Amino acid sequence: MYKVKVFITLRENVLDPQGTAVESALHSMSFEAVRDVRIGKYMELTIEKTDQDIDDAVKEMCERLLANTVIEDYRYEIEEVVAL
Amino acid sequence: MYKVKVFITLRENVLDPQGTAVESALHSMSFEAVRDVRIGKYMELTIEKTDQDIDDAVKEMCERLLANTVIEDYRYEIEEVVAL
Repeated sequence: MYKVKVFITLRENVLDPQGTAVESALHSMSFEAVRDVRIGKYMELTIEKTDQDIDDAVKEMCERLLANTVIEDYRYEIEEVVAL
Repeated sequence: MYKVKVFITLRENVLDPQGTAVESALHSMSFEAVRDVRIGKYMELTIEKTDQDIDDAVKEMCERLLANTVIEDYRYEIEEVVAL
């Protein structure tokens, strides 16, 4: 069994209006020291062990479904969980 | 300057219909080994150094704005960036 964490972020040159809104809200709550906010997605997947290489499988999931690679970057961490 | 990463996830006993939809989609793409998908938010904040304790500040931002603590959990990582 694997526990996979996927982080999806907007590419650097893509505008992030949601982040800008959160930044303004934080400023109005007197957190003026906040300079930049970028908002992305975080996913936790539990995947059973199969014959397929886990790294290849997760990469394909990200490319084909989880991330829009035109405007988003992704990275992931794979952790093997040993059932007791 | 600090770089703060905030991870917001749904509490374990809260249903995640978005995660269920992604899981079904992955199954239909022949990734049948996927057992569970939970979707959360990932935020990157850049914060300037001030007199206020950064840990307290980030905690207050999460509690008051970034997370809905009734249904969501949050955790964060603070990294100090030294300007060159």
